[in-house]
Amino acid sequence: MPIDPAAAIEITAFDWVPPFAQGYVRDLRPRWACEEMGLTYRERLISAVDRPEWYFRDQPWGQVPTLRDGEVTLFESGATLVHLGEKGGLLPAAGQARASALSWLFAAFNSVEPYVFEWANVSIFAKKQDWAALRKPSLLEDLGGRLDRLQDALGSRDWLSEAFSVADIAMVTVLRAAGDSGLLEPRPALAAYLERGIARPAFQTALAAQLAAFSDDMPTRKQDA
Amino acid sequence: MPIDPAAAIEITAFDWVPPFAQGYVRDLRPRWACEEMGLTYRERLISAVDRPEWYFRDQPWGQVPTLRDGEVTLFESGATLVHLGEKGGLLPAAGQARASALSWLFAAFNSVEPYVFEWANVSIFAKKQDWAALRKPSLLEDLGGRLDRLQDALGSRDWLSEAFSVADIAMVTVLRAAGDSGLLEPRPALAAYLERGIARPAFQTALAAQLAAFSDDMPTRKQDA
Repeated sequence: MPIDPAAAIEITAFDWVPPFAQGYVRDLRPRWACEEMGLTYRERLISAVDRPEWYFRDQPWGQVPTLRDGEVTLFESGATLVHLGEKGGLLPAAGQARASALSWLFAAFNSVEPYVFEWANVSIFAKKQDWAALRKPSLLEDLGGRLDRLQDALGSRDWLSEAFSVADIAMVTVLRAAGDSGLLEPRPALAAYLERGIARPAFQTALAAQLAAFSDDMPTRKQDA
Repeated sequence: MPIDPAAAIEITAFDWVPPFAQGYVRDLRPRWACEEMGLTYRERLISAVDRPEWYFRDQPWGQVPTLRDGEVTLFESGATLVHLGEKGGLLPAAGQARASALSWLFAAFNSVEPYVFEWANVSIFAKKQDWAALRKPSLLEDLGGRLDRLQDALGSRDWLSEAFSVADIAMVTVLRAAGDSGLLEPRPALAAYLERGIARPAFQTALAAQLAAFSDDMPTRKQDA
């Protein structure tokens, strides 16, 4: 519902990614935030296969998402979540509620995602390299320790801070990849947290929107077409 | 100057770390932010060697810094920078200035630091493990690519966004470790950016304050003493 070509908010996403990445590209985060808060957005689709050089002026590493809101532009999905959360209410404006949401937001991006990303690296992207198999045991220990302490900190709460916030959008999307690797099976409270997150209608709508944007086939050098 | 035992702001730091980590612990970030903005703070020192179990209630992974400001508490150095920046002015309140600072703040924590941290891992912490030497070439390529694009994005500006902001506090502290490894030598604009950052009097005062907090000798199980 929030996709509207006339919307002030524009989210940049890819027009195709390989199957293993479909549904996991980070534009899912601002899409989800918009759906939760009823903020309409339009899409700008670019090629991941033949990434246009001009796009590096919008995003230093050529990644998605970037976000435009009227005259303002942002990159990094964390920054888009702060911007949208302040606009639509999923980042509390003051007090301990804001402090907790900010703390957990950065925790997702700096204290958990780097370990999950490296796990994807050794398991998928670099799995044929000599170092990857040797790295797995120590990485699993590090990542497992992070997840154990995260589960302890969540305790019996439904969400990381007092109420659902952009921090949960960040952490749930970080944990999805860990869940797919079976890493949450020994951590039932985290697995239940992940299930609560992805069961939200706004998540499901955002996921469907990302998938709908992909071409059926891998595009070949679209910029030259 | 801003250290004041009666201050409303409290920064938690370690009372000792091994020599290679001295001057690099992340409480440097909120200390630096406070110094830049003339915000007084007090210190709460805990043992890194014998980390007290109660501290994991303040910080899920037992790390520093945490920050208290009156009745509000935060963890993750990124969150402390947002809080302090909003209080003291080094995070612009609105418009493109705020959007840029937020984007670069998350870029430091999510797009650059994970690579620098893993570089420290293969070079220092895990250097005797079999995988570390094998990992170095591909990691150096990934990290180098990040730094090249960062240098392109900085261009001829002094700071990441229009004026010095908390994003620069984050990025300069991230780049210090890369600079110590010689990774900025082929990237003179980034090396100059790092030099501009650490030449700021507020950085130097913050660094001296972190170093002054360390005991001369490694403490042994202080909690039991």
